[in-house]
Amino acid sequence: MRTDPPPGLLDAFRAYEQALGTDDLDALDRLFAPGPATLRGDATGLLVGHDEIAAFRGARGGAPARRLVEVHVRTVDDDHALVVAVTEPRGGGRGQQTQLWERGDAGWVVVAAHVHAPAPAFDARVWRVLGDPLVAGATDGPLTGRTVAVKDLYAVAGQRVGAGNPTWLAGAGVERAHSAAVDRLLAAGADVRGVARTDELAYSLAGTNAHTGTPPNPRAPGRVPGGSSSGSAAAVALGQADVGLGTDTGGSIRVPASYQGLYGLRTTHGAVATTGLVPLAPSFDTVGWLTRDADLLAAVGDVLLLGGDDGRWSPRLVVSPALLAHAQDEVASRVGAFAADAGAATTTAWDDVDLAAWAEVFRVRQAWEAWRAHGGWVRAHPGALGPDVATRFSTASQVDDGAGAAAAVRREAVRAQILDLVGDDVLVLPAASSVAPRPDPADLDAVRTATLRLTCVAGLGGLPAVVLPTRPAAGHDGAGSTSHAPGGAGPDRPAPGRRADLPVGVCLVAAPGRDRGLLALARTLAAT
Amino acid sequence: MRTDPPPGLLDAFRAYEQALGTDDLDALDRLFAPGPATLRGDATGLLVGHDEIAAFRGARGGAPARRLVEVHVRTVDDDHALVVAVTEPRGGGRGQQTQLWERGDAGWVVVAAHVHAPAPAFDARVWRVLGDPLVAGATDGPLTGRTVAVKDLYAVAGQRVGAGNPTWLAGAGVERAHSAAVDRLLAAGADVRGVARTDELAYSLAGTNAHTGTPPNPRAPGRVPGGSSSGSAAAVALGQADVGLGTDTGGSIRVPASYQGLYGLRTTHGAVATTGLVPLAPSFDTVGWLTRDADLLAAVGDVLLLGGDDGRWSPRLVVSPALLAHAQDEVASRVGAFAADAGAATTTAWDDVDLAAWAEVFRVRQAWEAWRAHGGWVRAHPGALGPDVATRFSTASQVDDGAGAAAAVRREAVRAQILDLVGDDVLVLPAASSVAPRPDPADLDAVRTATLRLTCVAGLGGLPAVVLPTRPAAGHDGAGSTSHAPGGAGPDRPAPGRRADLPVGVCLVAAPGRDRGLLALARTLAAT
Repeated sequence: MRTDPPPGLLDAFRAYEQALGTDDLDALDRLFAPGPATLRGDATGLLVGHDEIAAFRGARGGAPARRLVEVHVRTVDDDHALVVAVTEPRGGGRGQQTQLWERGDAGWVVVAAHVHAPAPAFDARVWRVLGDPLVAGATDGPLTGRTVAVKDLYAVAGQRVGAGNPTWLAGAGVERAHSAAVDRLLAAGADVRGVARTDELAYSLAGTNAHTGTPPNPRAPGRVPGGSSSGSAAAVALGQADVGLGTDTGGSIRVPASYQGLYGLRTTHGAVATTGLVPLAPSFDTVGWLTRDADLLAAVGDVLLLGGDDGRWSPRLVVSPALLAHAQDEVASRVGAFAADAGAATTTAWDDVDLAAWAEVFRVRQAWEAWRAHGGWVRAHPGALGPDVATRFSTASQVDDGAGAAAAVRREAVRAQILDLVGDDVLVLPAASSVAPRPDPADLDAVRTATLRLTCVAGLGGLPAVVLPTRPAAGHDGAGSTSHAPGGAGPDRPAPGRRADLPVGVCLVAAPGRDRGLLALARTLAAT
Repeated sequence: MRTDPPPGLLDAFRAYEQALGTDDLDALDRLFAPGPATLRGDATGLLVGHDEIAAFRGARGGAPARRLVEVHVRTVDDDHALVVAVTEPRGGGRGQQTQLWERGDAGWVVVAAHVHAPAPAFDARVWRVLGDPLVAGATDGPLTGRTVAVKDLYAVAGQRVGAGNPTWLAGAGVERAHSAAVDRLLAAGADVRGVARTDELAYSLAGTNAHTGTPPNPRAPGRVPGGSSSGSAAAVALGQADVGLGTDTGGSIRVPASYQGLYGLRTTHGAVATTGLVPLAPSFDTVGWLTRDADLLAAVGDVLLLGGDDGRWSPRLVVSPALLAHAQDEVASRVGAFAADAGAATTTAWDDVDLAAWAEVFRVRQAWEAWRAHGGWVRAHPGALGPDVATRFSTASQVDDGAGAAAAVRREAVRAQILDLVGDDVLVLPAASSVAPRPDPADLDAVRTATLRLTCVAGLGGLPAVVLPTRPAAGHDGAGSTSHAPGGAGPDRPAPGRRADLPVGVCLVAAPGRDRGLLALARTLAAT
């Protein structure tokens, strides 16, 4: 292949560099080929189509200043050439860009670009503190060699707890002892890799944080990771830790597991001690964890679950169309297909349940408990919380003791009903009402309301819940025309499109104490 | 551009994926175009030419297992197409590969590939512990907003000191107070970003570590970073910290600065307190630091240098051809050009100096002190040190008190001679005898011997020394045929080749206490 540049190419390349340097969006848009086939990829994901690329640029606000260190041209013909450039950003490190250029009627344009910038020391949206390891586990245990991302609510000896809020962190003392869950994981051989970000005081399901940013969702670029165990989940999805230790009060394990295609367990309320853990709503708070596979999910259960069942169990699976109807169509369809594959029986027992009313009971009682736990701190630190969580606490402060007590009474009735409905079956339902939404505040509020209607079932019941990723629907080819079946190098399925490939989690809920049984079931289902 | 694949391309692509999965080097070599123009780039750098790529693959030992998530084809003609694939490694995260394929007589081959794998949580070759920040500095000081990578010899309150050795780390207690230098940096507003790797007990100049790997050198891919302040320097070169706090006993600031194109200061012996610092050879040990620019280098000096000169000084620069002759030709030529540009006078005063004899005085006295500092620990922990540093300590253990004392006497005589020779001039000499070598043990030994002959001048004299990067020689086009002048997007100079672009540092040495004067000089020279 020729290495001399075709006429005009280097001028176009220089114009592109200059437009990047000045963040000249019009010029950049012009220099990228129009239409749905144009590609631009970087560490955060691959964008397909000129529109998606233009939207990304508009939101970015300019690229860091950089120097070109090497420029290589590989020329196909007078109208097509590849440019490979090594860049040196002013801030250090080296990057690379590879661009396929084409000359059309309007001159040279980029048809496909692949860019990488130097990596930061670490992703501070995911982690607050990290080490190699931060705390070493026992050298000979069932989890030896595994790394854990600890949600920033758990005490880790030698570290402070930040609870997702810089003011909280600034006022925190150094912990002298590990929280109970961390202690057991270390004794079982796992290393603590670091302290992972959380939504502020865990009072959110989105996975956003006004102070430290939104952890990436590698399986759904541009969408939220889910929370509040957001950093723990992202660390696992990114391959930066094996186990994400989190909590689940109203869905904080289940939602990020669903949005990121992970396995997750929310334990039976009270099954794993919350000693050394910042509370949110103690009568709902549970310990939970996330992994990339069902085997490790179960192995962690063997370490953290002291009581409960022995896992030997052959339950009936049931699925309620009435509950599925509370999810987005595509989520309902994926979860329905999963239930069918798993041989779940259809039940009408949940048809008359008023999930909106249940979610309201959950919301009110959680709010009352959250204000009792943190109202004093919130009041003493005006302006310390980000807007969304501040609003939530402000609303919580309005729940008086009468309303809180009434919700507790109502909750006991609902709980009895849930226990009766679940019985010794396994209820198959969506782990979240939707795929991961984009970080638009209005969307997030609507998604939270819808999701709580589904997640409050395990929340109110104090039930264990395991989440598994579902497979994309067969035959869906998404963006279609621009993607080709990977074939031969993975499961034989069509190329996933932009949307069909977004993760959807299925949630299996059972009676209190059935944690190990659910973990065993998840292993079986994952293997088939 | 067409998006349907040309005949045979997807088969070749699948064959490539399969060869990757099985680490079939023959197949991979066949599937990359032969010749010097083939390109392969990843986060560690761009390889040019089939040979370089084949050598990389041979040393890698296989790519991690991965699944193809999306495959996009952009077809130029029946013989040329781009493949862009999103990959999902089994260990989590997502990657991307972009390949330009060409069909020739032997079928489809890759002409250029750009690969990125998911980033690890952090580069454990560079860092041991990290935080956002690890320790926060004062909110309103001259260094507020700057981040520091602290060499793992300095006490940081709340952390243990590892000294580059896991056994040392395991036996270390948590530090209750910051070392003096760290304390002053924090008080001046800098944040401690993390604890950076060091060669074991700082007893090396290579920047390798048998336990934690070799930090990358972003400016010289595949070559060592220089040590012993290896992690601090790499963190700065990578843009992961602004200031690399290190030490310099026999060149541990100067050598990594030179190999990585950084600015560095080795301070006058005794000018900055070594309180809270693991010693190597106390009569030679000095505090030092590295930055990406001369202004910040000086700003840190304003914080750490308490006594000494006020920086107002108009010294004469001198360069000794006899000293230059101790460096590789290309290093001597770059440093000579720098001296000429800076208006340095040529001196013959150093012509009769026996640098080999001086270096031996340095080596023997350093060894005697190092064994007094650490011999007890080394003896009590057999097998704890990596082979190279273990050998060095073993040799050091042979230096008896008589030899140590004799070296001290001889050192005083040499020191007097050096002070006399330097006078109130600034001596311009190479910061290291060579560009960064490849990590071949035999090469490293030879390079160490050659480098010590140059670095021992400041070492024996207890002199301050500032290092600046030099510019590549004009007109050198390196790999030439495959690279094109970046033009228009940087300084107007020819495209750097593979070798000519390797960093070379120049070292300016002056009388004790002239630290600020050297920093001011470095700023002036960097600006011109």
